[in-house]
Amino acid sequence: MTDLIVSVEDIKKHSSETNCWIVVDDVVWDMTEFAPTHPGGSDIIHKHAGLDASLAYNSAHSPSLISKTLGPSKRKGKIDSTTPTDLLKPPPTEEAQPKLEVGAKPALTTLINSCDFEAVAEKSLTKKAWAFYSSAATNLVTRDANKSMFDRIWFRPRLLRNIRHINTTTKILGQDVSLPFFVSPAAMAKLAHPDGELALARGCEKFGIAQCISTNASFTMAEITSSVKPESIPFFFQLYINKERFKSEALLKDAEKNGIKGVWFTIDGPVQGKREGDERVKVESATYAKAAISGAAATNDSKGGGLGRTMGGYIDDTFNWDDIAWLRKATKLPIVAKGVQTAEDAVLAVKHGLDGIVITNHGGRNLDTSPPSLLTLLEIRKHHPEVFSHLEVYVDCGVRRGTDIVKALCLGAKAVGMGRPFLYSLIYGQEGVEHFIDIMKDEMETTMRLLGITDLSQCHPRYLNICDVEHLIPRSLESPLPEIPQSAPRAKL
Amino acid sequence: MTDLIVSVEDIKKHSSETNCWIVVDDVVWDMTEFAPTHPGGSDIIHKHAGLDASLAYNSAHSPSLISKTLGPSKRKGKIDSTTPTDLLKPPPTEEAQPKLEVGAKPALTTLINSCDFEAVAEKSLTKKAWAFYSSAATNLVTRDANKSMFDRIWFRPRLLRNIRHINTTTKILGQDVSLPFFVSPAAMAKLAHPDGELALARGCEKFGIAQCISTNASFTMAEITSSVKPESIPFFFQLYINKERFKSEALLKDAEKNGIKGVWFTIDGPVQGKREGDERVKVESATYAKAAISGAAATNDSKGGGLGRTMGGYIDDTFNWDDIAWLRKATKLPIVAKGVQTAEDAVLAVKHGLDGIVITNHGGRNLDTSPPSLLTLLEIRKHHPEVFSHLEVYVDCGVRRGTDIVKALCLGAKAVGMGRPFLYSLIYGQEGVEHFIDIMKDEMETTMRLLGITDLSQCHPRYLNICDVEHLIPRSLESPLPEIPQSAPRAKL
Amino acid sequence: MTDLIVSVEDIKKHSSETNCWIVVDDVVWDMTEFAPTHPGGSDIIHKHAGLDASLAYNSAHSPSLISKTLGPSKRKGKIDSTTPTDLLKPPPTEEAQPKLEVGAKPALTTLINSCDFEAVAEKSLTKKAWAFYSSAATNLVTRDANKSMFDRIWFRPRLLRNIRHINTTTKILGQDVSLPFFVSPAAMAKLAHPDGELALARGCEKFGIAQCISTNASFTMAEITSSVKPESIPFFFQLYINKERFKSEALLKDAEKNGIKGVWFTIDGPVQGKREGDERVKVESATYAKAAISGAAATNDSKGGGLGRTMGGYIDDTFNWDDIAWLRKATKLPIVAKGVQTAEDAVLAVKHGLDGIVITNHGGRNLDTSPPSLLTLLEIRKHHPEVFSHLEVYVDCGVRRGTDIVKALCLGAKAVGMGRPFLYSLIYGQEGVEHFIDIMKDEMETTMRLLGITDLSQCHPRYLNICDVEHLIPRSLESPLPEIPQSAPRAKL
Amino acid sequence: MTDLIVSVEDIKKHSSETNCWIVVDDVVWDMTEFAPTHPGGSDIIHKHAGLDASLAYNSAHSPSLISKTLGPSKRKGKIDSTTPTDLLKPPPTEEAQPKLEVGAKPALTTLINSCDFEAVAEKSLTKKAWAFYSSAATNLVTRDANKSMFDRIWFRPRLLRNIRHINTTTKILGQDVSLPFFVSPAAMAKLAHPDGELALARGCEKFGIAQCISTNASFTMAEITSSVKPESIPFFFQLYINKERFKSEALLKDAEKNGIKGVWFTIDGPVQGKREGDERVKVESATYAKAAISGAAATNDSKGGGLGRTMGGYIDDTFNWDDIAWLRKATKLPIVAKGVQTAEDAVLAVKHGLDGIVITNHGGRNLDTSPPSLLTLLEIRKHHPEVFSHLEVYVDCGVRRGTDIVKALCLGAKAVGMGRPFLYSLIYGQEGVEHFIDIMKDEMETTMRLLGITDLSQCHPRYLNICDVEHLIPRSLESPLPEIPQSAPRAKL
Repeated sequence: MTDLIVSVEDIKKHSSETNCWIVVDDVVWDMTEFAPTHPGGSDIIHKHAGLDASLAYNSAHSPSLISKTLGPSKRKGKIDSTTPTDLLKPPPTEEAQPKLEVGAKPALTTLINSCDFEAVAEKSLTKKAWAFYSSAATNLVTRDANKSMFDRIWFRPRLLRNIRHINTTTKILGQDVSLPFFVSPAAMAKLAHPDGELALARGCEKFGIAQCISTNASFTMAEITSSVKPESIPFFFQLYINKERFKSEALLKDAEKNGIKGVWFTIDGPVQGKREGDERVKVESATYAKAAISGAAATNDSKGGGLGRTMGGYIDDTFNWDDIAWLRKATKLPIVAKGVQTAEDAVLAVKHGLDGIVITNHGGRNLDTSPPSLLTLLEIRKHHPEVFSHLEVYVDCGVRRGTDIVKALCLGAKAVGMGRPFLYSLIYGQEGVEHFIDIMKDEMETTMRLLGITDLSQCHPRYLNICDVEHLIPRSLESPLPEIPQSAPRAKL
Repeated sequence: MTDLIVSVEDIKKHSSETNCWIVVDDVVWDMTEFAPTHPGGSDIIHKHAGLDASLAYNSAHSPSLISKTLGPSKRKGKIDSTTPTDLLKPPPTEEAQPKLEVGAKPALTTLINSCDFEAVAEKSLTKKAWAFYSSAATNLVTRDANKSMFDRIWFRPRLLRNIRHINTTTKILGQDVSLPFFVSPAAMAKLAHPDGELALARGCEKFGIAQCISTNASFTMAEITSSVKPESIPFFFQLYINKERFKSEALLKDAEKNGIKGVWFTIDGPVQGKREGDERVKVESATYAKAAISGAAATNDSKGGGLGRTMGGYIDDTFNWDDIAWLRKATKLPIVAKGVQTAEDAVLAVKHGLDGIVITNHGGRNLDTSPPSLLTLLEIRKHHPEVFSHLEVYVDCGVRRGTDIVKALCLGAKAVGMGRPFLYSLIYGQEGVEHFIDIMKDEMETTMRLLGITDLSQCHPRYLNICDVEHLIPRSLESPLPEIPQSAPRAKL
Repeated sequence: MTDLIVSVEDIKKHSSETNCWIVVDDVVWDMTEFAPTHPGGSDIIHKHAGLDASLAYNSAHSPSLISKTLGPSKRKGKIDSTTPTDLLKPPPTEEAQPKLEVGAKPALTTLINSCDFEAVAEKSLTKKAWAFYSSAATNLVTRDANKSMFDRIWFRPRLLRNIRHINTTTKILGQDVSLPFFVSPAAMAKLAHPDGELALARGCEKFGIAQCISTNASFTMAEITSSVKPESIPFFFQLYINKERFKSEALLKDAEKNGIKGVWFTIDGPVQGKREGDERVKVESATYAKAAISGAAATNDSKGGGLGRTMGGYIDDTFNWDDIAWLRKATKLPIVAKGVQTAEDAVLAVKHGLDGIVITNHGGRNLDTSPPSLLTLLEIRKHHPEVFSHLEVYVDCGVRRGTDIVKALCLGAKAVGMGRPFLYSLIYGQEGVEHFIDIMKDEMETTMRLLGITDLSQCHPRYLNICDVEHLIPRSLESPLPEIPQSAPRAKL
Repeated sequence: MTDLIVSVEDIKKHSSETNCWIVVDDVVWDMTEFAPTHPGGSDIIHKHAGLDASLAYNSAHSPSLISKTLGPSKRKGKIDSTTPTDLLKPPPTEEAQPKLEVGAKPALTTLINSCDFEAVAEKSLTKKAWAFYSSAATNLVTRDANKSMFDRIWFRPRLLRNIRHINTTTKILGQDVSLPFFVSPAAMAKLAHPDGELALARGCEKFGIAQCISTNASFTMAEITSSVKPESIPFFFQLYINKERFKSEALLKDAEKNGIKGVWFTIDGPVQGKREGDERVKVESATYAKAAISGAAATNDSKGGGLGRTMGGYIDDTFNWDDIAWLRKATKLPIVAKGVQTAEDAVLAVKHGLDGIVITNHGGRNLDTSPPSLLTLLEIRKHHPEVFSHLEVYVDCGVRRGTDIVKALCLGAKAVGMGRPFLYSLIYGQEGVEHFIDIMKDEMETTMRLLGITDLSQCHPRYLNICDVEHLIPRSLESPLPEIPQSAPRAKL
């Protein structure tokens, strides 16, 4: 077979993805059809459309491979060696071109996971905002365990299954969502971006995921809910019970008026924890140096006492299980208790007829060495699996990866929340939020495929090996140590 | 509604906490009532009393939030825009103002936990004093485990309880104290501050907590006990039994005369451990270079032998359980054995009619790899819970956080002691001691609230998840390995 | 006995390994016979052949030792002290002479283990190639656990056995190999060296070990298999099932034609994992900055969607156990499933009549926190030991040492594969591959000898102490947590 | 009472330890009697004999303490303030005076534990000698675990016992020794010091402890044994069995002639392990670069093969249990097998009538991930406690502290050996060896006292909490995993 002679001009005419010729070792090939199935990705081929790809090709393949793979039908001929071929030279590749910077921040497209967003946040936020978001209680044991517990559970992937079509939709309190993760309520999103909770809502709208609005949001409920198309996504409202109940009642009315789909009242923060990162920023400013932090006020003046941790001063620290009756009366919305940390309290939530619980320790911000959320989830699942029949269980804290989400769901969670990661993505505004959701969605779907499941309903503990943490689940909910006898006979000599 | 016009002068009249107006986006608001319930804390508002708060407000809130929250009654009008408003400008905030330094030490108010005090101590004390206080036996395994064991026990917080009123009072040997922690006896407090044990006593007096005085205190018992109001706090006296018993008897008489409430005799230090940090400081000074350390004296001269560890040379290293009869005769005060490290010895303490025991390993200073105090506490609670019915159990070593205290109490301890942390706080004199107690008290109360308890009598193992350390408690007090048979038949080929 | 006088010239005549005299303290000794048994190695003696060895000798031995050890028969006399002895001076030793560098790489002889090759790879490969080879999924948990699990298993060496003759031969799918490890299939060996898979094949040929060829190899099957003598080593072929089955069928025909001995079809990569090291290299180049990575494409343009991870776009993600019937029909070669990660799937492989399985998680490259290969091996061995009767089990991932290989074999593996290490050795071409195989062979044989075994058939779990990892093996293959009851009666208050 | 006036001259007359006056705040005190019982040590007082001690006193004590403690009888009067008192000024203390350096090494007196000696060794030895001594097999897992296992066992100290008189004597193979640790055999002590094994022997002689001489010692047996007084300490002889048995027989005759008390033949080194630290030193020198290391010789020349690890080329690698009969015939000395690593081999040692075993893994130098010695000791004690009735068990490897020694004895060891630590102490010659023994003796005695035992016969597992490592002891000596069935029926679909 004699090759045709192909001119440089002719080659240049086939330089698009839909019409893609390349030159390899002076032979011209039509790659249009093959490119999408190229094991090394179509990108590297499309980058050379209408160009000489010999250099790139030969760095990875033997000379004969292309002919063997494509067959004679794709061979378009030989390049015309009588004319200059400079026009076919590909642009240089490896040398990194200057990164695109958006202000002081790296280009959004260079962020590829939740940790990248956190790294940007540490540098971009004001010292005060970073301290407020990132800090947690005292020794940070719980904050760090929230995360590390996920990596201590192994998957048990089942292979050789048809995993082409993935379905990640589910319902939260009866509301449709496209993905089983939501925006956890967190105060003051405006510290991250002027659009605050509005940008979060718009990002969620794009993907169809749920948002829970904090009592301490930067914007009003009406402003947030009206920032997206009506009923496009479900909103929930996080409530701190006010000592002045009428104020909470007003908020609940407001919630119903604004189309909120459920009330998540916080139970793990009757007082605020000791967040030392946050406190240090304060004691370092002269303004606060006069006021004592952490209740300590042993100054020279005789005033004594101290400021205490009054941030949550309006929160009703007497609110207890009996008061749920009031809450039921104050709203007709579904009610979720946010902050459950033991199987016993999960059972109480069922007994009091709640519609859901969020397992959370407030991101490790309140009581240090409270159990990591995943451990509480395991405890409930082990000792009171019936809880999952009666109400929906959500998990918050430490979720940073698609693998984390799938693990929580395999253990019975209906959905998981993320707080800090969403705030960090918000630094880029709505676009950052969307990019972040996209990443988590992709990680989750990849996890499902590689695990061998295609629908969230297939999530099950059998896909997990929990052996490395199983000993941390209490064997029984009884006291782990014997009681002290009330009147033991005195031992004799 | 038409707004009133408010003049700058008028606004400046409302610049106190009890009369607090602020300006936000040209509107004047009366914040007096709202400030104490502000979720973000009253400080930020009071800082802007009589000033324009727009900048701070807008960085965190949407424009509409203030109106929505306060309602029209708090709206005082609009600012008079015809006059200069420079006087309303708030002072700059974020830029840290120069820290207040007290000599070489950071301002006391910037210290917010026990670790901060330790960090100051390392820098402020003489090399010798720091080595003496901080050093521990050989590889430091026990010293570090004392601390880390606390963080390996998870809390099991119970939420939705009325936790407004906290009661932290208890009794030690029948004496009222306001908090369940006390000053552990430690030698030579004067190395930290000229006022030594006197400042410790005065700090304790302010809060009503107990102090245990070391045999090797820098001041006499009379000086220390008379430094506070009579009977204001209970003092205990730590005793090393002297080889010359009459000297110990004299000290015991002295104790009674000075109103001491109990004798805590040390049982874990018949000889002193090998504290290498301490020894290195000595071998580095030429004075000591001639004398051998650690009993090693292989010098060129023919003297041989060596100094040995003679520090505790006067301590009676023959003193044993049978000698407790003598001790009982020598004093009518309650007697506590300080240094119990096994359940067996706890049982012996009961058998010998003691009034209390301190679980301690001397801060890891004597025998390295002796069990961390928390482990001994667990061992006694598991195998001999009746011990707690017969005498009081105190725990020392490794306590650095309010969470640590509550954990020890949940496991049955009546109170906990702190040694090094009090010495480090003493660097700031009485004021430092008070600041430190205040911090610990606040941490403890916060822990109780977030754990769902309001009184120390509610402390119970069920509030703890001990799974991560449970395997470290001996399953039985019998030998963990089989005995060697005395006359085993020889195995045949 | 009077010594002969030996001249310098005479001594210089005995300066070879087979005729070796040395001088020690003016006495001349014949070392020819003794050198090979010298406890300190023959090298140090041969280095001094025909020279004065006094300096080296006296630094390690007492003057009398040589006479005592060799006896009078080896004493050749005393050196002639009347003539100059400069010629007997040994060359200086300790000062390191300049290292031989091959280009930028250290001399191959200075590489003594697989880690050394990895260190060279990191420095020598292009940034892109290094990222492609070394990267793994997300948090790298599985990649690292693959390795660390090996070191958590202790040997139980049995001593006092005749271990002179070691036999390391075995069979893979009936094919003879000299060693129980093979080259795992990995894409694009040409990125490491222009000779790519050809050099790998030639290295294997020298030692007689097996090679498995990747679907994505740089060379064609024909090129690779014909690069060595016919039938000199067994080749296997790794297959990704193509969505267009006829293409896979063509490859299978090709395999048979080229003398391939078995088809290893990959089951753990229906989609590619998220390899962030690899992705970062891409996002940093401007070419890719436009395209989103990880499915995230929240760029400013309205296109949305995203590139996704299309690299493996041609792979049939619907292929499942039922399709094995097709595979059986498409080839008469033995079939091995590559990617088994649970005992359940191993059992399925038996049920479907497969000839072998490779336990692998793709080097931790696909699903992070999938179980380390050694754990899967333990799981199968514990719960379904009969699997090993029905098919051959190979283990891949994390093998870096001869000890690792022996451990896998003791647990039932027929052979182990290595991927990255072979690619890294390939940087030095065929010679590097040979050097690497030689190292692994030596490590393996030394391990066998010191363990007390001489033939691979003696490998057995009793030579291992698996106590440190035993708790990680699921106790049962049932769900580790109770099922959620479908209609639990609601708990009552 | 009116004070006498004491002149400066008079005070200066009392400036010795046996006649010691000091001045505190112008009062003169006779400290002679009190100084030895001073809680802060007599040193600080003796340093001020005949001097003004006010500064030192007041930094630690209240002014009244001295009077209270000493009483009026020791008050010698007031200083004569009319004459100059410059002569009473103490020398400055805290400023470190220049350290005494012996050549490049720190003064021996500044070394206070075995780690200090190791640190000196790393700096003082030649690169080659340090590599030879310190290196171990491949990943160093066993070398490091040998040490760390000791720290994972907790003591269970029993207090309130009379521990004044400590007895550390014991017998090894019937020979009296003053302490239960001995010098392990190690090759080539001359690399550390010209006096080599002779200095070790003389150091042992001073304390009365045993020494085991290596087959590869730098000096002959006769030289070593005759370097101390006859029968002053027991010597043992470590034997590698030579392929040429008559050579071993000659050595054994030699041993008997030189008064050796037992033969310790090595069983864990039929071939040498891969010690990479050692190999790297070799490959870096040009001489060795030509020869392959680790059996790898893929050089360009066609010679192939390789040097291999020929160091132990004369060792009989066929020697096995049956050959012990030969050994019994070749000597009438007690026989000890050095290198036992499993309970099974310990039982075989009993069956073959040996007199002792050394549990050792050659300092982690031979087979990496062989079990740490302490684990083997635990395994034997758990599964075959009768072994300890039939022969003596010694433990080697990882012993660095007095606490380590006591733990090994509590688990049944008769004595422990130390290899590297003795070599490192030898850098200072005999004096260093003595200093090191003195340190270990002091550490051991302190441990016994603080543990509550006074005689080695009281050592018992009940003084240990082994919970942290107990799971590492095989539950049974049977295979930890089920056997592979020989003809399992094929599972059906």
